[in-house]
Amino acid sequence: MSESKSITRIYCETDLGAGLSVPLGPGPAHKLRAVLRAKSGDEVQLFNDRDGEWRARLVDLGKTQASSECLTQLRAAKAEPGPWLAFAPLKKDRLDMVVEKAVELGVERLIPVITARTENRRLKMERLIQQTIDAAEQCERLSVPEILEPVAIEKLAAMWPEDRTLLVAAERQNVPSLAQKLETVTGSLGILIGPEGGFETRELDGLLKLPISIAIRLGPRILRAETAAIAALAVMQAQCGDWRDR
Amino acid sequence: MSESKSITRIYCETDLGAGLSVPLGPGPAHKLRAVLRAKSGDEVQLFNDRDGEWRARLVDLGKTQASSECLTQLRAAKAEPGPWLAFAPLKKDRLDMVVEKAVELGVERLIPVITARTENRRLKMERLIQQTIDAAEQCERLSVPEILEPVAIEKLAAMWPEDRTLLVAAERQNVPSLAQKLETVTGSLGILIGPEGGFETRELDGLLKLPISIAIRLGPRILRAETAAIAALAVMQAQCGDWRDR
Repeated sequence: MSESKSITRIYCETDLGAGLSVPLGPGPAHKLRAVLRAKSGDEVQLFNDRDGEWRARLVDLGKTQASSECLTQLRAAKAEPGPWLAFAPLKKDRLDMVVEKAVELGVERLIPVITARTENRRLKMERLIQQTIDAAEQCERLSVPEILEPVAIEKLAAMWPEDRTLLVAAERQNVPSLAQKLETVTGSLGILIGPEGGFETRELDGLLKLPISIAIRLGPRILRAETAAIAALAVMQAQCGDWRDR
Repeated sequence: MSESKSITRIYCETDLGAGLSVPLGPGPAHKLRAVLRAKSGDEVQLFNDRDGEWRARLVDLGKTQASSECLTQLRAAKAEPGPWLAFAPLKKDRLDMVVEKAVELGVERLIPVITARTENRRLKMERLIQQTIDAAEQCERLSVPEILEPVAIEKLAAMWPEDRTLLVAAERQNVPSLAQKLETVTGSLGILIGPEGGFETRELDGLLKLPISIAIRLGPRILRAETAAIAALAVMQAQCGDWRDR
């Protein structure tokens, strides 16, 4: 799996268009030079969710910045709607795994949620944002999903849109399976995955009182939190999301 | 997610039964003492696929071995059939991730497959077996999935059962999506996930000539190999596997 072609993709916040000169910041410049051993004249792909994906050429490649010239458009901009993932942040490696895999699986928005048993309450937001960019470059998305500042679980309901179903992964509860529930749910989706150790009863009860929330099971085994997040997103995309499109 | 109860589960190859004295080897003894700070008299759960799951008490806990006494049965033995995962082994962390998550997702058999672009050809089988045991203990399975010695991709067909559909994850190909194919497939399933960089054309062509193999897509994005394996197993279990059972 992963790319068989070798053209480097770079997410650019600045405007992209035919003939435009596009500056690349220190992050991409370093990656191009030190990691990818790129040279001036090499071809790259630039993208963002406003202007789509462009063939471009590196014009100048310095230590702390680079510049490139946009050539032709490869893909037009298009919306990339997807499920939302609300999740209790895990410790380092498993948090990274959730963020990277969620981006690959087409998540639209990531919402770190602080619960009573949440292990990791000090998120390095800049680092997480960079991970969403890296994963979007790698998996050939046009958009980079948004990652919100952490939200207390008690405040999740207030910020959750009324027209987006909130699936809540509840373990050791006699609730329908995710696949079963997805057969009857329409419209946009999000899923909430609790911390290792699970939700406290009052947290779960509070959430499940909401008209938009539905408790679901993720199979008969006890999943680690990162497995639950990745597995749930895959099932949601395969059954109701963009894995079904041509 | 993950366990909210604190009883330690230990996989035991020896017989389990009411009143039986069960020796625990150096691995479990070390884990109980050094990692879990257990003491003689503590309660544990012992399990294997022949005798089911048992409540037991630690009788003696030494540095290199321990003994326990089986008390009462918690769950009867039962078969845990599941999908097979054939996969080109990745480098260390990502290989570990595939093995751990596949066990959590109920895989029955793991088959490392050596392809032209496979990165990791020297598997430490003992370490991988230990990982399957650790994950089975954690996720509350009764069985530990089997992990075979690596097989060359050219020999996969010869060892694959005629009555188990082999889904082949093919990227950048105009083939049906996994969810779509699963609607028409019956019986046992397995999936083959290639290495980073994908299969060589001759490898894919060779496999897809077999009557039991079907090429499928895992959505519109380019997934890393470990994401593809985890996502595919989740979708297979949710749609046709034991995520649907009560």
